[in-house]
Amino acid sequence: MASPAKVDLITLGDELLLGIRENSHLKFIGGELARHGLALRRNTSCRDTRDEIIQAFREAWMTADIVITTGGLGPTSDDNTREVIAHCLGLELDFVPEIEETIRARFDRMGRTMSENNLKQCYLPRGAELLPNPYGTAPGIYLQLEGKRLFMLPGPASELRPMFKEQVLTRICADGFCSLDDAYLQIRTMGVGESALETKLLPILNANPDVQVAYCAHQGMVDLRLSLDSMPIDFERLRAVGDECREVLGPDFVCFGHCHLAKAIFNYLRAHERTLSVAESCTGGLLSNAFTDIPGASKVFAGGFVCYSNESKMEMLGVPECILQQHGAVSAECAVAMADGAAERLGTDYALSVTGFAGPCGGTPENPVGTIYIGYHSPLGSWCVRMVRPGERTTVKTLAVNRALDVMRRKLHKYNLGEALACECKAEEAEVAE
Amino acid sequence: MASPAKVDLITLGDELLLGIRENSHLKFIGGELARHGLALRRNTSCRDTRDEIIQAFREAWMTADIVITTGGLGPTSDDNTREVIAHCLGLELDFVPEIEETIRARFDRMGRTMSENNLKQCYLPRGAELLPNPYGTAPGIYLQLEGKRLFMLPGPASELRPMFKEQVLTRICADGFCSLDDAYLQIRTMGVGESALETKLLPILNANPDVQVAYCAHQGMVDLRLSLDSMPIDFERLRAVGDECREVLGPDFVCFGHCHLAKAIFNYLRAHERTLSVAESCTGGLLSNAFTDIPGASKVFAGGFVCYSNESKMEMLGVPECILQQHGAVSAECAVAMADGAAERLGTDYALSVTGFAGPCGGTPENPVGTIYIGYHSPLGSWCVRMVRPGERTTVKTLAVNRALDVMRRKLHKYNLGEALACECKAEEAEVAE
Repeated sequence: MASPAKVDLITLGDELLLGIRENSHLKFIGGELARHGLALRRNTSCRDTRDEIIQAFREAWMTADIVITTGGLGPTSDDNTREVIAHCLGLELDFVPEIEETIRARFDRMGRTMSENNLKQCYLPRGAELLPNPYGTAPGIYLQLEGKRLFMLPGPASELRPMFKEQVLTRICADGFCSLDDAYLQIRTMGVGESALETKLLPILNANPDVQVAYCAHQGMVDLRLSLDSMPIDFERLRAVGDECREVLGPDFVCFGHCHLAKAIFNYLRAHERTLSVAESCTGGLLSNAFTDIPGASKVFAGGFVCYSNESKMEMLGVPECILQQHGAVSAECAVAMADGAAERLGTDYALSVTGFAGPCGGTPENPVGTIYIGYHSPLGSWCVRMVRPGERTTVKTLAVNRALDVMRRKLHKYNLGEALACECKAEEAEVAE
Repeated sequence: MASPAKVDLITLGDELLLGIRENSHLKFIGGELARHGLALRRNTSCRDTRDEIIQAFREAWMTADIVITTGGLGPTSDDNTREVIAHCLGLELDFVPEIEETIRARFDRMGRTMSENNLKQCYLPRGAELLPNPYGTAPGIYLQLEGKRLFMLPGPASELRPMFKEQVLTRICADGFCSLDDAYLQIRTMGVGESALETKLLPILNANPDVQVAYCAHQGMVDLRLSLDSMPIDFERLRAVGDECREVLGPDFVCFGHCHLAKAIFNYLRAHERTLSVAESCTGGLLSNAFTDIPGASKVFAGGFVCYSNESKMEMLGVPECILQQHGAVSAECAVAMADGAAERLGTDYALSVTGFAGPCGGTPENPVGTIYIGYHSPLGSWCVRMVRPGERTTVKTLAVNRALDVMRRKLHKYNLGEALACECKAEEAEVAE
């Protein structure tokens, strides 16, 4: 393979720049390309206005080999990507009756009538190829011109994602720009900061100067991705370096790959035919959700209690009133009673519980906002871990969930269950709420 | 105020382009600026390499009035924004001993030792001002040069967000680039598609050609933002147009502002001193989480049951075994029994339940993957609504949560409770998982 293709992504839409919508296409498309060995060079998000689209498109088209645009193919008046880019390239737009038929049929199936403004979506730049959209009304557009490739995709994620995998990735893999194999080895760690991690792994990485490494800290975890300059990737070599890192990291090593912490626990419990329940207060459902995001969760996960008040802790979990009175709901005693109660109510082998002050209100001098108690029930006994991590409410909740999962993972690891936990899981399986 | 300032955001980091991390800064910074009347012109995400940073920075610096960069101020070897941009601007970097002291003190407080690579963070381009970072180790940098303004902020969201509000927004508001007041009126709708919505509101918008409108469909809702070209915004006029839209929209109108559907319900129940519980299967904790994301949720939200198996539905909620045997867990009968059971167990006035097949497995000929039953218990009786929406597991879960909330909102609306629901809530209160 020659030098890697330059791929630029242009994400269009005022809503991206005005804080209305997350630019989730960047993460998705960047991740898919990286997994197959093609690094996205640049992403430009620009507004729906003609001038901005022209500028962003011209810059990308001038130097990139592949340009992907998202958005602006819809039926409303601010959707004009098709028109502006066709103009930029000096191409006429042709009305394609087949597109109209497809859209009308789709509306019929939904029992709705097509609006006249949907007719905008039936035009195609001359010489372009239609990318059928079975998931929505706006078809995509594919064009080869001047030795470059242009893919225009609709904005909604539920349409773009399958279309990207089925129609874009397959085309650029077939054209030799990237491979269907994995192109890097990711090591997921938890419990060690980014710079301490770099320091810890420096001897290994210095001894392997051809191995490139990228770090990313997120939600209490730090991922590092090992890759090599040369293609195709010598995966055995990467894995050997990865194994050295794992040795040094000890229990801070979570897995190779993209596994969510919950998935690592799920894999272990499933392999050992053990069950789990959850009781949570301040995380409000997110701990349960971490497990229920896993397809087939019910094989391990029996259920979760979201008990927000003292009454619900007593009613749902049988937490003794005297514990709540003497120690309060945010206490080690309550966390353990919650975990024990959940395990007992649902007859599970293991249970995890979380209680704490997520903020902005609540908190006491001993347990300020950001204080979380994590309870862990297992066949070997029950434990509690306390953490304090002030911050925004939603951040505290996410960190508390990950810390609770990590407490359980480490306990399992301690009893020499590391091998079962450090499973490799396909990135596809791990597309959970990260 | 003269013509609006051109603001460009450069988000740096390989992790953004390689699919490791969401570009959440774009939504946050774009949203904050828009709320104060300044539209972000463009966002470029580029890799950490010197050449890419130089190109992106030069392009922005040439035509923008304000450039904001995020990321690349950390201690690891791939953090080099400070060095590259100082070089671009022809500025020396000076070592600032005070920064080292601050970082050392921070590590001391955490009981850790500072790594030597943190010393990178103690340099400042000559003539720049330090933006203190009480939330992490990397300070921000502020520079006025050539009539332009440059803000360099650290990458972690928990550091960037408060720094942006406290140190960037205040500075650019004080300099007259934007105002502290709201700059647009947002109308949140649910139950009507984007193009049908545009058609429905066309007469109103045609009669008010100076009112600009942007649409955004997300997770079953469609938001529209009304704004005016002229500054300062004539908010009364916008509100008059908004009220006309609301009239036409009827029950599809959710609220003015950024309210999550759960917040609209919470506000109503709180005002009427009513309580709510939740029972959910396939949404796995997300419905509970929609409520517990609201500070002070416990005033209304008693608790939630995440019951994933038939056994847990019987054990946790008292769903009769005969219902599960005759109709199955994914049925109207089970959904209603779950809602009734939750209300009874926790003694609440209202209850919402969700049961269905989120996929990718499960499903029957009558109830394919994507089929969701929503149960609603109220003092006036219990109802069930069925929806079918195939798609990715996490998408189906989110849509099911929003649909369940909307079912409840509409029921309350039907009994003429619209006024209490259509509260205006500050955007700050609504920073929930959208």
